[in-house]
Amino acid sequence: MKEQTNLIRRRLLASAGGAVAWAGFGGSLAHADSTEPASSSSPGPVSAEKPLPGYAKWKDANSMIVHSANTVETRRDAFGSAGITPLDRLYIRNNLTPPSEDIVKDPDSWKVEISGVKSPRSFTVAELKTLGLETVTMVLQCSGNGRGFFPHKPSGTQWTVGAAGCVSFTGVPVKAVLEATGGMADGMKYMTSTGGEEIPAGLDPNTLMVERSVPLSGIEDAILAWEVNGEALPLAHGGPLRMIVPGYAGVNNVKYVKHVAFTKDQSPAKIQQSSYRFSPIGVKGTPEYDSIWEMDPKSWITMPSDPNQPVKAGRVQITGVAMGGMSEPEKVEVSVDGGKSWKEAEFIGPDLGKYAWRSFVLSAELKPGTYQMACRVTNEDGKSQPENRVENNRGYVNNSWRDHMVAIKVA
Amino acid sequence: MKEQTNLIRRRLLASAGGAVAWAGFGGSLAHADSTEPASSSSPGPVSAEKPLPGYAKWKDANSMIVHSANTVETRRDAFGSAGITPLDRLYIRNNLTPPSEDIVKDPDSWKVEISGVKSPRSFTVAELKTLGLETVTMVLQCSGNGRGFFPHKPSGTQWTVGAAGCVSFTGVPVKAVLEATGGMADGMKYMTSTGGEEIPAGLDPNTLMVERSVPLSGIEDAILAWEVNGEALPLAHGGPLRMIVPGYAGVNNVKYVKHVAFTKDQSPAKIQQSSYRFSPIGVKGTPEYDSIWEMDPKSWITMPSDPNQPVKAGRVQITGVAMGGMSEPEKVEVSVDGGKSWKEAEFIGPDLGKYAWRSFVLSAELKPGTYQMACRVTNEDGKSQPENRVENNRGYVNNSWRDHMVAIKVA
Repeated sequence: MKEQTNLIRRRLLASAGGAVAWAGFGGSLAHADSTEPASSSSPGPVSAEKPLPGYAKWKDANSMIVHSANTVETRRDAFGSAGITPLDRLYIRNNLTPPSEDIVKDPDSWKVEISGVKSPRSFTVAELKTLGLETVTMVLQCSGNGRGFFPHKPSGTQWTVGAAGCVSFTGVPVKAVLEATGGMADGMKYMTSTGGEEIPAGLDPNTLMVERSVPLSGIEDAILAWEVNGEALPLAHGGPLRMIVPGYAGVNNVKYVKHVAFTKDQSPAKIQQSSYRFSPIGVKGTPEYDSIWEMDPKSWITMPSDPNQPVKAGRVQITGVAMGGMSEPEKVEVSVDGGKSWKEAEFIGPDLGKYAWRSFVLSAELKPGTYQMACRVTNEDGKSQPENRVENNRGYVNNSWRDHMVAIKVA
Repeated sequence: MKEQTNLIRRRLLASAGGAVAWAGFGGSLAHADSTEPASSSSPGPVSAEKPLPGYAKWKDANSMIVHSANTVETRRDAFGSAGITPLDRLYIRNNLTPPSEDIVKDPDSWKVEISGVKSPRSFTVAELKTLGLETVTMVLQCSGNGRGFFPHKPSGTQWTVGAAGCVSFTGVPVKAVLEATGGMADGMKYMTSTGGEEIPAGLDPNTLMVERSVPLSGIEDAILAWEVNGEALPLAHGGPLRMIVPGYAGVNNVKYVKHVAFTKDQSPAKIQQSSYRFSPIGVKGTPEYDSIWEMDPKSWITMPSDPNQPVKAGRVQITGVAMGGMSEPEKVEVSVDGGKSWKEAEFIGPDLGKYAWRSFVLSAELKPGTYQMACRVTNEDGKSQPENRVENNRGYVNNSWRDHMVAIKVA
């Protein structure tokens, strides 16, 4: 019951976590969820349910937890069992207020500049569409997903499990764009993508702009995408054009991408240099710490997951989602006794590729009582989800199975 | 240009085809698209664009062609390239006016009766959810998809390509339900599912009711589904519960299913006995003709597909969808010269299983001119999409690659 109380407490914290940021709702360029926002260590009273922001009004409100205008989480029981997350339930996390909805009115006319190549030039989306076509199904996950479980209360949105989804992006392979521009210029080590958010005059762009560099290995399956789950990419998810680097944490998938540069160095932007760095607690991020790039194996139970809703005794189908990170999820195990014993669960639905997650189910006969339900995934490379989180200052990449455990009452 | 004119003419016919049925819009039990509706051989003037029916108001109107209140088609260029069809673009075809929206308000309480088993009983959806869980990604296709290309103008909706989509259904395997009811009673040969539409008192239910029998081989991968594409099954697609028989034509996937019986004989309902039978032109369906059950390989080009919208000369990405029917699509070829020569296209995105379709792309360098674009798929069993349709009275199962060809102008 302690676990249950903790979970409820965490939920309260989580829903209050965005309250300060919420004040920025509607502001034109307010950092609604800046990379270093006000601390949430004094949660205060639980705020009333927040409305979805205007650009995301089409989301299914019942499936979402609105932290702020730029941070909206999927409820733990709302992922469904299809493998692919419905678009109207996919989380939102913007580093800056998104550009005007006008930019998705004529998506084909959006321009992206390509530099650091033999023949630099720009392409409209219409032109990109002639170069090639690929679809990749993949987990999109915010670096801070699971932050709400860190005991040191890192600043930032107190996500639990729902800053993640598995979706299909369609666009042109970055490799085809490189081919059309004569190939990469010599000596380049990174692909650096710049977002199309407006930066007000007079401010140093580096402090604000969303510009992320990934190592060249990330290019292999990267695409410039104009479609998600078969629909034109909406503004909320980076339309008209988004850089997609499969397997890499959310922030590397730059929205409204206006410039892709192959560069010798990483971007000088703060979001690259100091944010999204894996530094020890109390230590500010700097380039000497790892950047948040490739994702790790992770899984969580989706149903039953509400500690306040008892489940009927008898046969219970325990379901969840499991991702492998950089290789396919191979095995997922479920425990109902807090990790003392494990049983292998079954994957359901089609295998959507190495960057996707899979839904799984374990059928269990449960007598009345309280069960500590946990799951852990192992990927094809043999990498397993660890029991414990790795502590870090900003609460990034939490894939601890123990933190994601749920206490479920069976009656 | 003749092909183009024909296509436009067909479109006009198609959009007028539902005009008579349209009169039934809003009627409580009117057969808005009965199995033997008024003939559309006198197309008359093109009707204005029709609104989506109330129960399907949530569909993306720009992606749909509304034939009648019970027949709504996906536009040829609106399938997207993700493999899975977005739910708000999935076609609708109801044989009767759907039940009240009330039945999806508390989906878990919907009841289905199981008979023709050792221990007959009924289950609520909540109870079914304890028995097992599976997701199957599959093509859902109306038996009459492609009817609009038959020259003898069969009665019924003049579908072109859009009475089809590829979606993920989640539910309990029929086999698990059989296990929970002691197994099938002896001597049964069919699984017979009954829809929950209301039949007015005084009428012989057999003339109206949606009750379909499939052979026992169809049970292998069949599920009773409460979810589609990760969302609760909406009324428009058979929620709260639908019988899903992967690989079988649309009509066999009975909506609002209230009774599943394992039976010695096929249903006495008209929809089983005389409709959906593969009879020669001019001959009414009877049980001596094949019932429309398993689907065949089929593919069509989705983009470019508008004969009125010239494409820019140069490199063109020709895309489409290809299904294998009862086995996986293995190869798809594209022709730009009306079938004189063929080139193998590339599948894109993940392999979604044998019942699904796959998106494909062929990159072609095209000079100005008019191109007759066609495609044909071959499945893993070596079965290929034929050049010509097989004529039949009601215009069912048209998978002719020639009929699905599009004339595209390149300028």
